[in-house]
Amino acid sequence: MNKNIAILAGDGIGPEVTAEAVKALDAIAETFGYQFQYNDALIGAAAIDATGNPFPEATEESCKSADAILFGAIGDPKYDNDPNAKVRPEQGLLKMRKNLGLFANVRPVSSYDALLPISPLKENIIKGTDFVVFRELTGGIYFGEPRGRSEDGNTAFDSCVYSKSEIERIAHLAFKAAMNRRKKLTLVDKANVLATSRLWRETVKDLSSQYPEVELDFMFVDNAAMKIIQNPKDFDVVLTENMFGDIITDEASVISGSLGLLPSASLGLKSSLFEPIHGSYPQAAGKGIANPIGAILSAAMLLEYAFDLKEECQIIKDAVNSALNIGYGTEDIFPDEGKSTSEVGDFISQSIVNQYKTESV
Amino acid sequence: MNKNIAILAGDGIGPEVTAEAVKALDAIAETFGYQFQYNDALIGAAAIDATGNPFPEATEESCKSADAILFGAIGDPKYDNDPNAKVRPEQGLLKMRKNLGLFANVRPVSSYDALLPISPLKENIIKGTDFVVFRELTGGIYFGEPRGRSEDGNTAFDSCVYSKSEIERIAHLAFKAAMNRRKKLTLVDKANVLATSRLWRETVKDLSSQYPEVELDFMFVDNAAMKIIQNPKDFDVVLTENMFGDIITDEASVISGSLGLLPSASLGLKSSLFEPIHGSYPQAAGKGIANPIGAILSAAMLLEYAFDLKEECQIIKDAVNSALNIGYGTEDIFPDEGKSTSEVGDFISQSIVNQYKTESV
Ligand SMILES: [Mg+2]
Ligand SMILES: [Mg+2]
Repeated sequence: MNKNIAILAGDGIGPEVTAEAVKALDAIAETFGYQFQYNDALIGAAAIDATGNPFPEATEESCKSADAILFGAIGDPKYDNDPNAKVRPEQGLLKMRKNLGLFANVRPVSSYDALLPISPLKENIIKGTDFVVFRELTGGIYFGEPRGRSEDGNTAFDSCVYSKSEIERIAHLAFKAAMNRRKKLTLVDKANVLATSRLWRETVKDLSSQYPEVELDFMFVDNAAMKIIQNPKDFDVVLTENMFGDIITDEASVISGSLGLLPSASLGLKSSLFEPIHGSYPQAAGKGIANPIGAILSAAMLLEYAFDLKEECQIIKDAVNSALNIGYGTEDIFPDEGKSTSEVGDFISQSIVNQYKTESV
Repeated sequence: MNKNIAILAGDGIGPEVTAEAVKALDAIAETFGYQFQYNDALIGAAAIDATGNPFPEATEESCKSADAILFGAIGDPKYDNDPNAKVRPEQGLLKMRKNLGLFANVRPVSSYDALLPISPLKENIIKGTDFVVFRELTGGIYFGEPRGRSEDGNTAFDSCVYSKSEIERIAHLAFKAAMNRRKKLTLVDKANVLATSRLWRETVKDLSSQYPEVELDFMFVDNAAMKIIQNPKDFDVVLTENMFGDIITDEASVISGSLGLLPSASLGLKSSLFEPIHGSYPQAAGKGIANPIGAILSAAMLLEYAFDLKEECQIIKDAVNSALNIGYGTEDIFPDEGKSTSEVGDFISQSIVNQYKTESV
């Protein structure tokens, strides 16, 4: 296997954690005899500093010619805190999603036995949690027109708009994911009130005949916000629109006990991007304390979603688990004996190599 | 003090739990020498059965001439499960809110020491939680126009609309509540994306100069959905728009461990209504197992918000606490030795009377 991976490390702790994710990919490449080519490209504040543009054309070209994109994080206080800044790092992110057509955000949520003590939820509630949320990323009220103010400035309005085709393309991805998992799909909406939610429900119901093995159910978003905390183990694949997904993915992220662990994917028809859900955390940059596991698990998702390498993905996940199980991790999850970013990355890469050796004996 | 209270007991367990709330009000009236007149009126399925209308004119008159409204619950499977039903109990609720101008939904959230074991959250996270959410109830995307489908049926749209005056009237209530509490107000919005949220932020910021003692902060709704679970003790008064409020109030309701405990108020300029947040729970109706505490605490809120009787409100809350502290409650919260609905109501009323006697010695 020979693949090109665009590396958009970005700002703050982005480069540090991405370096550890690349180590994990190298460990897989070495073990299985694959060739991964990495092409570094600029994004965010780093790109503004160098070119004035947070998503330069050269980066867009790199992304479009790559087989997958590994992304770090963006954002720098130098731009965030300047109300007069004309160009902001976050604009790079929105432009990238749009230009690459990344319409589906995928966020796995699971509990780790070694981290049960740091979750705000009780052990019996979360132990064994394993679900994944498919959030529509380029439609809905965050983009709908018209939006703005009345002429007198006293009334404001936003529009939530969805077309059947926007719903179908992400619904297919969610049904397919369910087929590879426990075959349960929950559509989260507010169909008792919203016209867009009724179109979601109707469209997803129609598609379900193509996936007869998948059990489809519907849940109102307010109820889902309760059930994610009360019975997170009940979910397998959750499908939802942009704003509801924004809220419930962040809500669900508390289950594991640390944002530093959580990976995500943003999928389009031609491109796919993988990134930890944490931000650029500029205060921690350069200190060697950033948790690389979110980035490393993003590399694992890349193998599964972009290259269809399920076994290799699982090997990375197992290596992460084995580190957590012996208490080997950064200070955010193991305050008493936190290791450095690169120590954790090295440990995980080494255990990828060792794991495979053991398995193949 | 001489007050008229409209009693809209409704369907399912509504009448049973409302009867216990009235016992608590009677205990207060007896103790303090007040006169409370109760006027029963029909609503929901009970009203459809009797009159064909889920919110009959006579009920509307009763509500409008009352000093406060005590509400039970509505909903009956006979109508809910009939897709051909032309009139539904829930229409009574929406019509009532609209005709009475109930624009602010108020939901207190607190933890009870005796119930820490039944919460899905860890004790150290929730112990001492005490906040209240003010949710705008008659505007936003649940009511905005235009809404519907394109002619070909392939596109659906909803509109979120807010005017400055809609925001101001509920913001004043929230600021005043904060003045009576720990003087902290958190506006939950999505101002980095939505035009309506930017109007909320601007309007609330402008009003804050009238409440200089209140510390105002802003939180994006996705972040709030995390923080409510991670640090619920950090909140005092939360103010938010209709849909965000729908989601985060239900999310926050899991903290106490049982929906059966939670009261709410819906406030307008001329009317105010008080109801437990639980539904009509028809499967439990008539069995004497419904938890009356949500209804009893709604009566306590009625005393505080409608009659400005803060001490009397606190006496009911203390009586509820004393029952919980000795493990006296229905089976949903004390599965091993659940008492009946009326036993719990009697116990609480009796302890209201006793408590005052003890205090006034
Ligand atoms: Mg978010
Ligand atoms: Mg709700």
